Amino acid sequence: MRIKTQDLQTINELHLNAHRRAFARLSEQLQEAGIDPQSLIHSLHQLQIAIPSWALGTGGTRFGRFPIGGEPRNLAEKVEDVGLLHALNRASGAISLHIPWDIPEDAAHIQALASELGLRFDAVNSNTFQDQPNQPYSYKFGSLCHTDAAVRRRAIEHNIEVIHYGEALGSKCLSIWLADGSNFPGQRNFQQAFQHTLSSLQEIYAALPADWTMLIEYKPYEPNFYATVIQDWGTAYLLCQKLGKQAFVLVDLGHHLPNTNIEQIVATLMMEDMLGGFHFNDSKYGDDDLTVGSIKPYQLFLIFHELVGGLAARQRPVNTLAWMIDASHNVKDPLEDLLQSVEAIQLAFAQALIVNRQALLEAQQQNDVAWCQELMQQAFRTDLRSLLAEARLQAGGALYPLQAYRQLQIRHHLIQQRGRKAVATGL
Amino acid sequence: MRIKTQDLQTINELHLNAHRRAFARLSEQLQEAGIDPQSLIHSLHQLQIAIPSWALGTGGTRFGRFPIGGEPRNLAEKVEDVGLLHALNRASGAISLHIPWDIPEDAAHIQALASELGLRFDAVNSNTFQDQPNQPYSYKFGSLCHTDAAVRRRAIEHNIEVIHYGEALGSKCLSIWLADGSNFPGQRNFQQAFQHTLSSLQEIYAALPADWTMLIEYKPYEPNFYATVIQDWGTAYLLCQKLGKQAFVLVDLGHHLPNTNIEQIVATLMMEDMLGGFHFNDSKYGDDDLTVGSIKPYQLFLIFHELVGGLAARQRPVNTLAWMIDASHNVKDPLEDLLQSVEAIQLAFAQALIVNRQALLEAQQQNDVAWCQELMQQAFRTDLRSLLAEARLQAGGALYPLQAYRQLQIRHHLIQQRGRKAVATGL
Amino acid sequence: MRIKTQDLQTINELHLNAHRRAFARLSEQLQEAGIDPQSLIHSLHQLQIAIPSWALGTGGTRFGRFPIGGEPRNLAEKVEDVGLLHALNRASGAISLHIPWDIPEDAAHIQALASELGLRFDAVNSNTFQDQPNQPYSYKFGSLCHTDAAVRRRAIEHNIEVIHYGEALGSKCLSIWLADGSNFPGQRNFQQAFQHTLSSLQEIYAALPADWTMLIEYKPYEPNFYATVIQDWGTAYLLCQKLGKQAFVLVDLGHHLPNTNIEQIVATLMMEDMLGGFHFNDSKYGDDDLTVGSIKPYQLFLIFHELVGGLAARQRPVNTLAWMIDASHNVKDPLEDLLQSVEAIQLAFAQALIVNRQALLEAQQQNDVAWCQELMQQAFRTDLRSLLAEARLQAGGALYPLQAYRQLQIRHHLIQQRGRKAVATGL
Amino acid sequence: MRIKTQDLQTINELHLNAHRRAFARLSEQLQEAGIDPQSLIHSLHQLQIAIPSWALGTGGTRFGRFPIGGEPRNLAEKVEDVGLLHALNRASGAISLHIPWDIPEDAAHIQALASELGLRFDAVNSNTFQDQPNQPYSYKFGSLCHTDAAVRRRAIEHNIEVIHYGEALGSKCLSIWLADGSNFPGQRNFQQAFQHTLSSLQEIYAALPADWTMLIEYKPYEPNFYATVIQDWGTAYLLCQKLGKQAFVLVDLGHHLPNTNIEQIVATLMMEDMLGGFHFNDSKYGDDDLTVGSIKPYQLFLIFHELVGGLAARQRPVNTLAWMIDASHNVKDPLEDLLQSVEAIQLAFAQALIVNRQALLEAQQQNDVAWCQELMQQAFRTDLRSLLAEARLQAGGALYPLQAYRQLQIRHHLIQQRGRKAVATGL
Repeated sequence: MRIKTQDLQTINELHLNAHRRAFARLSEQLQEAGIDPQSLIHSLHQLQIAIPSWALGTGGTRFGRFPIGGEPRNLAEKVEDVGLLHALNRASGAISLHIPWDIPEDAAHIQALASELGLRFDAVNSNTFQDQPNQPYSYKFGSLCHTDAAVRRRAIEHNIEVIHYGEALGSKCLSIWLADGSNFPGQRNFQQAFQHTLSSLQEIYAALPADWTMLIEYKPYEPNFYATVIQDWGTAYLLCQKLGKQAFVLVDLGHHLPNTNIEQIVATLMMEDMLGGFHFNDSKYGDDDLTVGSIKPYQLFLIFHELVGGLAARQRPVNTLAWMIDASHNVKDPLEDLLQSVEAIQLAFAQALIVNRQALLEAQQQNDVAWCQELMQQAFRTDLRSLLAEARLQAGGALYPLQAYRQLQIRHHLIQQRGRKAVATGL
Repeated sequence: MRIKTQDLQTINELHLNAHRRAFARLSEQLQEAGIDPQSLIHSLHQLQIAIPSWALGTGGTRFGRFPIGGEPRNLAEKVEDVGLLHALNRASGAISLHIPWDIPEDAAHIQALASELGLRFDAVNSNTFQDQPNQPYSYKFGSLCHTDAAVRRRAIEHNIEVIHYGEALGSKCLSIWLADGSNFPGQRNFQQAFQHTLSSLQEIYAALPADWTMLIEYKPYEPNFYATVIQDWGTAYLLCQKLGKQAFVLVDLGHHLPNTNIEQIVATLMMEDMLGGFHFNDSKYGDDDLTVGSIKPYQLFLIFHELVGGLAARQRPVNTLAWMIDASHNVKDPLEDLLQSVEAIQLAFAQALIVNRQALLEAQQQNDVAWCQELMQQAFRTDLRSLLAEARLQAGGALYPLQAYRQLQIRHHLIQQRGRKAVATGL
Repeated sequence: MRIKTQDLQTINELHLNAHRRAFARLSEQLQEAGIDPQSLIHSLHQLQIAIPSWALGTGGTRFGRFPIGGEPRNLAEKVEDVGLLHALNRASGAISLHIPWDIPEDAAHIQALASELGLRFDAVNSNTFQDQPNQPYSYKFGSLCHTDAAVRRRAIEHNIEVIHYGEALGSKCLSIWLADGSNFPGQRNFQQAFQHTLSSLQEIYAALPADWTMLIEYKPYEPNFYATVIQDWGTAYLLCQKLGKQAFVLVDLGHHLPNTNIEQIVATLMMEDMLGGFHFNDSKYGDDDLTVGSIKPYQLFLIFHELVGGLAARQRPVNTLAWMIDASHNVKDPLEDLLQSVEAIQLAFAQALIVNRQALLEAQQQNDVAWCQELMQQAFRTDLRSLLAEARLQAGGALYPLQAYRQLQIRHHLIQQRGRKAVATGL
Repeated sequence: MRIKTQDLQTINELHLNAHRRAFARLSEQLQEAGIDPQSLIHSLHQLQIAIPSWALGTGGTRFGRFPIGGEPRNLAEKVEDVGLLHALNRASGAISLHIPWDIPEDAAHIQALASELGLRFDAVNSNTFQDQPNQPYSYKFGSLCHTDAAVRRRAIEHNIEVIHYGEALGSKCLSIWLADGSNFPGQRNFQQAFQHTLSSLQEIYAALPADWTMLIEYKPYEPNFYATVIQDWGTAYLLCQKLGKQAFVLVDLGHHLPNTNIEQIVATLMMEDMLGGFHFNDSKYGDDDLTVGSIKPYQLFLIFHELVGGLAARQRPVNTLAWMIDASHNVKDPLEDLLQSVEAIQLAFAQALIVNRQALLEAQQQNDVAWCQELMQQAFRTDLRSLLAEARLQAGGALYPLQAYRQLQIRHHLIQQRGRKAVATGL
């Protein structure tokens, strides 16, 4: 399914006057504060958030899954779904594949389809946390860390295959999340597991093309509930440091212990030039994989405050990091959920852009704590929704993507086309 | 020190034009959404947040304390400080005393002073977590729960004295926080500790005037680090149920385990008509006692969403709950900190007032989860700062209290008057 | 598969001399402390731990599942598996069914089989957290709390059916765990959800036979990640209080927020005579469902300290509570895992039995905190493993069940009999 | 006060027969498992735990402090108190000073006193988290990380002074814990704070004698409640790596977020040869500073499992790490508390020594998870208390130190000597 430009325009027309009033009010407010709205819009247009191929279907928990219908049945349909999102918000112009769930059997065709929809292929992801049917070795007790060299060999080769699939599609990045760990004290020798993981990663790293990066993800627990080999950013950092200049740490917002100060981790990794990518989601308890910004929007803003500052300090453009949503859509329409997530990311990004950094720096130097807080809250409390709408309008998207999605009855059409029982591969 | 009306007006004048533009923009936005700004202002005027007498000085941790100077040296000066806050924000029209830190030796004088400043006396608080010099019995091993009846007797009598002090000032509420608990497994018999606490509370309850309420606070840990007698809302509820109709649960935002859904607890207590009061603060780790709204502003909004809904369901006015700030001001000027806290509370309250509750109810009935989220976020993302400023302006306060506090050089004057080494009683 | 008495005796013979020496040493130690070993053995024989029918197969997470082979393919085989465990440890003499996973189509046959193996049927469990194929209504948005009365009706009827299945097997208890909750702020009206749940439970309660109990379980999160209708013991307590005398709270060790003092909750519920059952498991992070005693054995002991004390205070025999293991066996042979869990439970129970309660009470009265700790640790640090072995020997079980299970090559036989790909129903 | 050898012997005599029976039973048990008890005793004698000078008085919280009386009034009395502990348990042969609380004004005298009591001086600790009276600069907003170079200079010089004090006493190690951090988002620039801290540490490092080590401690929160500059092991590791070969990470058990797998951090640091020291305590919620082993004894054993394995892998003797207790004694007699802590440490160490590491390695290689758990639990469940008593007896200490302390009425004598109101410096 494709969205017709005409249909989108018709819908936008309905809200145009109200939007123009709202944006005029905001522009006046921003200009009074010395901020140029159009410059913010320019920055917003640069931020493109990759959509993972496995997030287009209904997600589930170990207790069950309740599919919504009309889910993409193959990779082409997944690319089409991302195309729908991008047509609406003009900010989802990338797709991130998960192998072996989404092996591109005809890479040229898939690439042409993506190009047509304005999409590029971001990081490719390997999967060594599940056994595939008829797989000769099992990952039950780990993959790159496994005590058995044959299992490690299999996992190494799988990662190298993933690189090859990515090359065929123009991807430049391999993203590795390892579930490897243990459920019980004593089950695994910590140091041996680290060393096996390191030497396995070194073999994969050796196969990495010169213009690629390798992203190493960390996570404290789940699916292992006593220990995880790469349990925190420090461990991921250690591995990247030993691997070489193409290895970077990937931060997934949900992969932290309760109360972790994630924004400080982001700042530290950027300071050491070790941050390579970001998986966005939100959570209240663990790796809940909820819609971005739905639980802790202020924390999201604080993280973007570090990202914006860190990129500026190195004069790096915003698109040099791998930005991706990594959420699970258990009770919402996955496409609606993704639209809400992208909007929340853009909002936090825009809020971070309007922090008065010069004033903040001065207040920090004087330890004027109350004023530092004011400056942060001034940015966060500003209502930038019409700025986002204007940015979308200027880029040819929908003023209000979620409403447009509903007015266009997209889910209805997808169910008609793909059936009510269509279930996407993935979690 | 008193703030002269003239001085305040002069300061307001400087910002008046800018404020009027901002408020006009917001009014237009609200009216487009069918919301009457003046009705919100009316509600804001009803919300008065009590300031605790112990929060006017610099707070500290077990590792140290760094006083700011000019702290109030006695109860009259504390009342004056609250008067300063109220003059600026017109929303801090109550004071909550802590005995024995702030025994009103001349109640008539103190009451007259408070009246003059537009303040009333809210809940009075007892203290059985510290030993006072020459106190005959020690609270080292508990107070109302103590194994020794003589210690319990002393603690019961202290609470009754606190009621008497409160009566003299026109207070209508006794607020009890018990530090009682244990540091080590086996130290205390849980059931016996509960029973002792209950029978002690029953004696205090018997001394409660007919038009008073008794508030029971809960807390999972600190200053005891293994168990606390009243560890959670369930335990406080149980005690209130056994005590009688004048006993209610008090919720302190910082008194919960990591990740607790506090707004659901608020909803449950309101459903059972068992919520009596609220201690506001914010926290990232434990009972951090930070400025309200400085860490988790969205959670604060969600809590106010329940409060507003719960009060409306029972047609209770907003001032029937005991609202108080309970924070510790370790690195900011305490008065500036309190101004920021009150502002954050008002903001969350106003955001909760503009939730489209009818639409939300319908979306909930249809399990339209994405839309429920939109409706909540629409309210939270609205920038209501100029509404608060207008409410203050109409009530005779400062447009921007923190800035006015600084322009009036209040801390400077207080230090001149009270000295750099003046230290308030309290934590 | 059945274990032949002769084979078990042959295996026990190999270890008998070593066991007798170990038990003689322990008996001497206990007698020096004034404790009668045989009396402890008598108590151990009374403690029978129910095995849930769904725990006999390999468990999994949302990321995958790695089956071990030889899993029971139907209810009869599940009963047989519990029979194997009970033959080995003589402490697993009960089975707890989960409907609709284990509908007893021929109840008489199943009951006869169970009797033959020395097993009785403990609590029956309903399931309203998954949709079954061709189910007319979906539990996607809740069951007993659902906004749609038709879904609630379906869930109520399902629970009543479960009672009927239980009656046919001689069960006396319905255990209800509700996954009902919400993933996002605003998704659900808390008070309405509670009221719907209450009225649904009242209908089920009305169908409860007079000699049955109803157990209400609580859980803070998972599979919902923002709020759960019955989020804590206080909410479950409230429901039970409103339901009537046959309703009790069930405590699952894994269903608590980080750092919760569970033993105090147990003490409170026993004090109010509101504790009805227990689900044992262990965890480090969330509801990890690990082997009992594998992570926090001291906490398990402290919980049993309250259970033993609470039962004694009411002169209730140990078998008046519903004791069950509720774990997930992702990386171990499920039967081995269950043997380890039962052993850990027995150990904690026995340790709790040897606490010098008279001395503890005196030390508590004197607030002799260091000595209270000594008394608790004295019990916990005592090595009671040979006592458990002796208890099993006297009851006709295996000295060392896990070793016997391996020497008898039970998994090998089960795989031969049932196949490598046999997969049990359940999680 | 000194303990007379004769008095100790008299007390030991009372328990000698019972001890011999208990130790004979244990020896038989260990020998059946192929373990030589005398070799374990030899290892136990090597483990000496430093006592911090600030832990000899009653500790407190921000809510209060309840002193016990007889607390040491000066450094000499503190050394004497450690001498009492060491005389009783022969395992506390070191003292760790905290400057400026315990400045040794007459170093020669203090050193002679310590030698006489069999004590050496372990790590010296600096304090930049409190202001001392008349201190020219304030640490309110940090020390080594401060925005003001003059404050950093003061803090650097203080640390260098601490080195000098340590040299005079024969110490070989500087231990640095920084409270530096922030209470509010925006208060501090993360990267600048790290860089200031690093350059300050580099200046201190330059003043370090060649045979000294510098230990860097980390902590997630308290006394700052939003961010701490050295928030986790990864940050401490980064600093040490940049500082040089004499810098190592110090692990304090209480300085972790909820549910952290500390034993894995220990394993990683040992693998990288970056672990320099250990602060022992126990906790349920935060940095509770409870008696070692009082809450999570199994975790303590797992940590020692890594320590014993890590030291063996590098063939390092046990005394090459700085071992110290760092607890707060709020409700127990501090000396009793310390005796219990040392005993718990020794117990966990001895349990770790009897793990069958060869069998464990094999089970790990085969991913025999259930058996790995058995092997760990076999060690932990063994009752080694009489081994510790025998080790003390052979070293000239008390069979049962806590009981001996009471029989000798040491606190009574200390109160008589020093007075009931004597209060030690420190927290």
